[in-house]
Amino acid sequence: MNSENFTLCEKVVAPSYVRQGSQARRGHEQLIRLLLEQGKCPEEGWSESTVELFLNELAVMDSNNFLGNCGVGEREGRVASGLVARRHYRLIHGIGRSGDIAAVQPKAAGSSLLNKLTNSVVLDILKISGVRSVASCFVVPMATGMSLTLCFLTLRHRRPKARYIIWPRIDQKSCFKSMITAGFEPVVVENVLDGDELRTDLEAIERKIEELGAENVLCVHSTTSCFAPRVPDRLEELATMCAKYDIPHIVNNAYGVQSSKCMHLIQQGARVGRIDAFVQSLDKNFMVPVGGAIIAGFDEAFVQEISKMYPGRASASPSLDVLITLLSLGASGYKKYLSERKEIYSFLAQELKNLASAHGERLLHTPRNPISLAMSLDGLQASSDQAVTQLGSMLFTRQVSGARVIPLGKEQVVNGRTFCGFMSHSNSYPCPYLNAASAIGITREDVTLCMKKLDKCLKMLKKDAPSSSSETLCSGLARLFSGSR
Amino acid sequence: MNSENFTLCEKVVAPSYVRQGSQARRGHEQLIRLLLEQGKCPEEGWSESTVELFLNELAVMDSNNFLGNCGVGEREGRVASGLVARRHYRLIHGIGRSGDIAAVQPKAAGSSLLNKLTNSVVLDILKISGVRSVASCFVVPMATGMSLTLCFLTLRHRRPKARYIIWPRIDQKSCFKSMITAGFEPVVVENVLDGDELRTDLEAIERKIEELGAENVLCVHSTTSCFAPRVPDRLEELATMCAKYDIPHIVNNAYGVQSSKCMHLIQQGARVGRIDAFVQSLDKNFMVPVGGAIIAGFDEAFVQEISKMYPGRASASPSLDVLITLLSLGASGYKKYLSERKEIYSFLAQELKNLASAHGERLLHTPRNPISLAMSLDGLQASSDQAVTQLGSMLFTRQVSGARVIPLGKEQVVNGRTFCGFMSHSNSYPCPYLNAASAIGITREDVTLCMKKLDKCLKMLKKDAPSSSSETLCSGLARLFSGSR
Amino acid sequence: MNSENFTLCEKVVAPSYVRQGSQARRGHEQLIRLLLEQGKCPEEGWSESTVELFLNELAVMDSNNFLGNCGVGEREGRVASGLVARRHYRLIHGIGRSGDIAAVQPKAAGSSLLNKLTNSVVLDILKISGVRSVASCFVVPMATGMSLTLCFLTLRHRRPKARYIIWPRIDQKSCFKSMITAGFEPVVVENVLDGDELRTDLEAIERKIEELGAENVLCVHSTTSCFAPRVPDRLEELATMCAKYDIPHIVNNAYGVQSSKCMHLIQQGARVGRIDAFVQSLDKNFMVPVGGAIIAGFDEAFVQEISKMYPGRASASPSLDVLITLLSLGASGYKKYLSERKEIYSFLAQELKNLASAHGERLLHTPRNPISLAMSLDGLQASSDQAVTQLGSMLFTRQVSGARVIPLGKEQVVNGRTFCGFMSHSNSYPCPYLNAASAIGITREDVTLCMKKLDKCLKMLKKDAPSSSSETLCSGLARLFSGSR
Amino acid sequence: MNSENFTLCEKVVAPSYVRQGSQARRGHEQLIRLLLEQGKCPEEGWSESTVELFLNELAVMDSNNFLGNCGVGEREGRVASGLVARRHYRLIHGIGRSGDIAAVQPKAAGSSLLNKLTNSVVLDILKISGVRSVASCFVVPMATGMSLTLCFLTLRHRRPKARYIIWPRIDQKSCFKSMITAGFEPVVVENVLDGDELRTDLEAIERKIEELGAENVLCVHSTTSCFAPRVPDRLEELATMCAKYDIPHIVNNAYGVQSSKCMHLIQQGARVGRIDAFVQSLDKNFMVPVGGAIIAGFDEAFVQEISKMYPGRASASPSLDVLITLLSLGASGYKKYLSERKEIYSFLAQELKNLASAHGERLLHTPRNPISLAMSLDGLQASSDQAVTQLGSMLFTRQVSGARVIPLGKEQVVNGRTFCGFMSHSNSYPCPYLNAASAIGITREDVTLCMKKLDKCLKMLKKDAPSSSSETLCSGLARLFSGSR
Repeated sequence: MNSENFTLCEKVVAPSYVRQGSQARRGHEQLIRLLLEQGKCPEEGWSESTVELFLNELAVMDSNNFLGNCGVGEREGRVASGLVARRHYRLIHGIGRSGDIAAVQPKAAGSSLLNKLTNSVVLDILKISGVRSVASCFVVPMATGMSLTLCFLTLRHRRPKARYIIWPRIDQKSCFKSMITAGFEPVVVENVLDGDELRTDLEAIERKIEELGAENVLCVHSTTSCFAPRVPDRLEELATMCAKYDIPHIVNNAYGVQSSKCMHLIQQGARVGRIDAFVQSLDKNFMVPVGGAIIAGFDEAFVQEISKMYPGRASASPSLDVLITLLSLGASGYKKYLSERKEIYSFLAQELKNLASAHGERLLHTPRNPISLAMSLDGLQASSDQAVTQLGSMLFTRQVSGARVIPLGKEQVVNGRTFCGFMSHSNSYPCPYLNAASAIGITREDVTLCMKKLDKCLKMLKKDAPSSSSETLCSGLARLFSGSR
Repeated sequence: MNSENFTLCEKVVAPSYVRQGSQARRGHEQLIRLLLEQGKCPEEGWSESTVELFLNELAVMDSNNFLGNCGVGEREGRVASGLVARRHYRLIHGIGRSGDIAAVQPKAAGSSLLNKLTNSVVLDILKISGVRSVASCFVVPMATGMSLTLCFLTLRHRRPKARYIIWPRIDQKSCFKSMITAGFEPVVVENVLDGDELRTDLEAIERKIEELGAENVLCVHSTTSCFAPRVPDRLEELATMCAKYDIPHIVNNAYGVQSSKCMHLIQQGARVGRIDAFVQSLDKNFMVPVGGAIIAGFDEAFVQEISKMYPGRASASPSLDVLITLLSLGASGYKKYLSERKEIYSFLAQELKNLASAHGERLLHTPRNPISLAMSLDGLQASSDQAVTQLGSMLFTRQVSGARVIPLGKEQVVNGRTFCGFMSHSNSYPCPYLNAASAIGITREDVTLCMKKLDKCLKMLKKDAPSSSSETLCSGLARLFSGSR
Repeated sequence: MNSENFTLCEKVVAPSYVRQGSQARRGHEQLIRLLLEQGKCPEEGWSESTVELFLNELAVMDSNNFLGNCGVGEREGRVASGLVARRHYRLIHGIGRSGDIAAVQPKAAGSSLLNKLTNSVVLDILKISGVRSVASCFVVPMATGMSLTLCFLTLRHRRPKARYIIWPRIDQKSCFKSMITAGFEPVVVENVLDGDELRTDLEAIERKIEELGAENVLCVHSTTSCFAPRVPDRLEELATMCAKYDIPHIVNNAYGVQSSKCMHLIQQGARVGRIDAFVQSLDKNFMVPVGGAIIAGFDEAFVQEISKMYPGRASASPSLDVLITLLSLGASGYKKYLSERKEIYSFLAQELKNLASAHGERLLHTPRNPISLAMSLDGLQASSDQAVTQLGSMLFTRQVSGARVIPLGKEQVVNGRTFCGFMSHSNSYPCPYLNAASAIGITREDVTLCMKKLDKCLKMLKKDAPSSSSETLCSGLARLFSGSR
Repeated sequence: MNSENFTLCEKVVAPSYVRQGSQARRGHEQLIRLLLEQGKCPEEGWSESTVELFLNELAVMDSNNFLGNCGVGEREGRVASGLVARRHYRLIHGIGRSGDIAAVQPKAAGSSLLNKLTNSVVLDILKISGVRSVASCFVVPMATGMSLTLCFLTLRHRRPKARYIIWPRIDQKSCFKSMITAGFEPVVVENVLDGDELRTDLEAIERKIEELGAENVLCVHSTTSCFAPRVPDRLEELATMCAKYDIPHIVNNAYGVQSSKCMHLIQQGARVGRIDAFVQSLDKNFMVPVGGAIIAGFDEAFVQEISKMYPGRASASPSLDVLITLLSLGASGYKKYLSERKEIYSFLAQELKNLASAHGERLLHTPRNPISLAMSLDGLQASSDQAVTQLGSMLFTRQVSGARVIPLGKEQVVNGRTFCGFMSHSNSYPCPYLNAASAIGITREDVTLCMKKLDKCLKMLKKDAPSSSSETLCSGLARLFSGSR
């Protein structure tokens, strides 16, 4: 309400009460002012009522909500269903313009503010999480994989001759496909075994660069967050190498924002060498629905070049989700999630270690992986061929989600290319294992319950062996757990 | 409530009332049954309560809503903000898997159903709207332009040698960029003037094909819906030509679902020749928020190939919006919108004709464009150089949205390529003009109000001329209206 | 957003777009200003977004939403459940103070505004609906019956000796109970038969007054809206009589706001004689959930006396519902509902007449009842004793709601008093009948569907007769339909 | 979804995933089953999604949501505004029937279930909170005061001759008014000073009973929860006395459910003597919006008699709020709130004691009051006549809500009766004081912030004294804080 309306209110209820109400309103506006002024994530989270007030204010600025608007264009932000209008807070025009996904829309000042502020708040959070020198970023309503594709497509215009992308192996289909879709040839470099850990084979990479010719290499495509026993790529060394050979470097940081280690690697890589862009998932780092990613970089011009590659307007939905979430949590709330995740990582490691030793297995020693853990399944494998796969199926039906079981020697064809030992990031990892991760938002209850159920399943499987299990194995599930994520 | 619970209810309130309640529940379930069974848009729209009941049922089937779930993966569908969870009906897992955006997710039976049903219902609507023989389609949470890019990237794997895309000129940045982003070289074919209409230059296209060699052409990229005086491309002839030369054919049908003419062109093209895929916007055809598109085609295998190119999971938000909308409207409700749009097109044409003649201008004769109309601005142009641009600015500040003003001879560089007469789809259209469109959801009030304001603006501009206008021209707005959409 | 924040926005997106957004905001504020200034129902309904913006503004003014509030009282507007907070738009403090349900709360300027504005808007609607000279009113979150009780309790303090309430018979339990609960002795005056109509027996009433002594009569308690064949009481004559004997007069106008006839009777009664208060239901007149009533009168001081009788604060929920509804509809929207209702009344009368004659029955001639109609069931009664009751049960199971079946000669004890011919407002109405009403919000489809089902039921019953019906009669339902509403 | 639909789902997505989804659904249904079976508050709180699923299920059973319903009655549950329908989960028919607010409605099986279950769950919570032997209760959508009035009106029918209500003085207007509104004469019995505490004067009460004659006394109206230094009435002795003289006994337990002491007093009173009904506020005990109360008793027949006194249907809104809240919290969540409240009571007492001694005041010794505390303001009073009142005003503008300042010797007329020393429950309490309470939902931050602000205010007032304060005293506020709550 504007001051004129507050004055009118004073004729209806006592002026002193109205004055206090109007003062209270200023409290909310003060928070909004700080956001607009600084473009940063507020230290303390906002209440739901401030968030909704703010979103309503934005919506009112979009032309589809103008009371006297008349529209004779082909895209007027009309909404047929009230359910749909409400769930988007009546912000209908999406983000960006045909020329640039980060651009401002004349028809939609509110949606444009939403877009700009989201990118600004997210940039702040990337800094807080460890990449202090990040220069620019934007939210894009696409999966991490498709966002990587967009980076590669952008690089094509800078390096029209290049056909290869050098890629230290990581067994996630969408990583591989991001290169295929962009039309490049992935050059898969196998990892080396270092104790239990699978690490970047720097020498092999350098060899490949020299073999192919630096000018024919579009970029190096490295990965931070990944399943143990693989560990984050050696970003510092890779970045130095990319600088040396003048090759772009794109980092897949899918769920790495939640880990100070992953973020530190990126920060260091950019400091000592070359990182052109790093891409992260919204849902995996910020507990929002699937569907968005952040493309970030250290050179504002290059980041803008990527944002200008997206042809057309885009969904504001992922931006809206992450903005609501970060305003609600505040920087302090987000940091609290991060530190809890770290604590529960240690707790999970300890629990898994205990469980492993109780069943004659062991927790693989992978200290460089800050999120994911792996427990060997040698004994289980020994008891029966199918037992490892069956464990996955049993956990699924017991509502343990996210635990992955990796059998030995699985072959898989992805886009025409055969991977041996698929899912294990290695042609021949020494043992089968089970993964469990401590990802943002996990609770102690998750861990405790998971350990209990896992313990039960392992006991059941042992009892059954060596005769075939009494639990009929659903072939669909079997395929599921041995096949892909 | 299941039957056991209904029986328990009978102990609390009279059995006969409970029985009636349970019977009423079956009414809703019957509607859901039909949807599941037939996969079609219901003829009559559902009530909000049936829609919400259905969405809640879906959500309950996703693992993030399991009461006993424990998660130790890196992506568990956790949501930090209640506001966010609710606005997505707690459907958090998005759509697709890393391998295929149309695939089913083990963790999320509900979201998977949502995805499958949406694609199925949308397919039904495409058929109803005129493309009877469409074989398959899927909703993708990307703009029309980016979706076209995905089609081109898919074709690259089929035609690795091809570098060119033949494109009858249409002045919308994202159309042009969709090809640039995919890494191809657009071959722009100017349109021919036929009366007032700008039409496909078939001969020039055939010449280009022969000049470049069919095997070097990735595809022909044609357009249906567009701004007058351009009219939809001659799809039948183009499709025949593509068949003849064995060249793929991708159709940009951005807002063409709403027009039986555009849909008929596609149906005919596919019947007599070759159309590999046609792409349409969700927001422009179904009155949902910006951000989604439908990729459809006549060969199920090829459509699936495209859906498998998207690396990673994707946002379910556009699918959710269009499903809610179509279930709420029903086929009959959607058809009603279509016929109203058609009627208002005639009304708009008549009104614009009257207005034009009152101001010494004329309605351009473009009967082949079923959506957009154009009125000449010769007189205005004569009065002052700036007047045409200024008209655009004046309409904007008067909350007339969507009316485009096209001055003569504007040059624009898009991705390094210079377009003369940009916005007019022609190097030298004979006159400046103003566009107005009758798009789905438009009302008679929109037209009436727009005409009134337009009339006023034209009168003001005449009074001002020849001296410069008293209304100060905001340079930002001037750029806006003469520059791009 | 305040002007400072708008200025900050201009640094994020182009000033001209922000300016248009801020201008659009003023459009909404202008509507709010009119409401605050005039206290009237807006002529045109508000959009959902204006309504929600307004409610959010109110909520922000309540102390439970102050960002820096600290509470050490026993009632601080805390809410444990987010679902609950949201559904009340965070307006938690209710309405009124311990001293007066219409009073302003220091802690809750927003809720107080809501309360005052609702009463003011509702007063405006009462005037528009025909009681032009109404002086004051307030919404109370109680049923019509309990609100009548509150009126009687207030009168007790003015007439401490009075023990009787004179009441022209109307067979609705809550009307009778409203007097019993207040601790008075209802003096039931039977109606007289005038053609088919049951009308007020003025002479009997005057006799009763003289017999009991005016000073022993608390008030006359008359009724407007009622089921045919009873018609509204003769308010003019009763009001004149009350003036003559200096007896208060309370009118039960339960669902009479929707009928210009009922409202006219009240207006006339107050003009020529005495009406102290008239009470109407919110749900029955304004299509909101059950639970509120409006107490209105022609003497502001007396209405305030009633509002001061309510001990304690009260639920704001009914006020909120009716305010949202009236702001959304606007006066024009409400008037449209009223005229549609009137039209459908004629349609229903005609349809019922046709149906009656087809089945050898007749539409009772009750032109003075503007809402309810009655069709004789003589023939049905003749066919079988149970047939009339059974018809009610059959309609219920066929989802015809609101149709009442009135058998002959039913006896019912209400609060210790026996009523002969209960439900028919008469000891011995000449025939059994069925009621149907045209109430606000009814549609032509309601009527058509009801007629079809009624026709079917009547046919089935005839076929069955004279042997007992094949449809087993649920005794619970039988009790229901012959017993009470 | 019923089993038929689940089977259909299996044709769309893999059967094993659907099966898991359907199993998950059973998880929710299992919770609902327990509720229906036992009618108790679940031990663990339900998730929002279970709560909403349940409410949607209820709504579907009401006739206004039947898909094929046709309505020709005067009350059909139609809702004009979608905003209103949604905020009530489409439960529109309210609770009760004209005959009984606790009765079942044929048209609304869902709303009826809601009503019955709420009363049942609330009864369970009353037992858990300490009144183990309570027999029956119901929620009524009226303030505590109006609910007390309803109890008195019900007793009138049992004791037609009685005119007096004996009432140990408590200075809250609505308590006094509840008796006046019901038409009885309150016999105010002053409290006795026992140390700092004000306690029931048992002898004076017994004298009054004998003086007036037991048969002329409608009931004793006692109070548990109250502001210190008054303490809960001596219920055991009063109950014994009521039993001895055969006088009904109604207890005002406004915010006593949150205190095990208050609940224990009621339990003991009923065990050793007579308590007919006890009434408590919903908002003050369950953190829901203002507007509802629970009427409870030890004799089911009497409680039902009260519920049958309410004439007409009533708002379901307060029932819905408390049901949502209790299902969300679960018994364990509610008990957690109770124990936190108790802890913070001790914290508040300690903090207030420290503050008092720092300012030369003292915490009054009132160990029998488990909720409210009082700190003397002797020194402040000495410094200036207005200082005490001014303190209240200063706290209000500093957003400290709920702190009451009680000056000496205030006179107030309530419904024609003059109270000396109003607000202090005593004609002449020895000193002025300030109240603060630890009520359910209070946090440590509330206490800490309040102490800080109070400290500041006291310092400011001392500095100002003896000259008049520099802070201009708003007369409206002064009236507010010395006048009433």
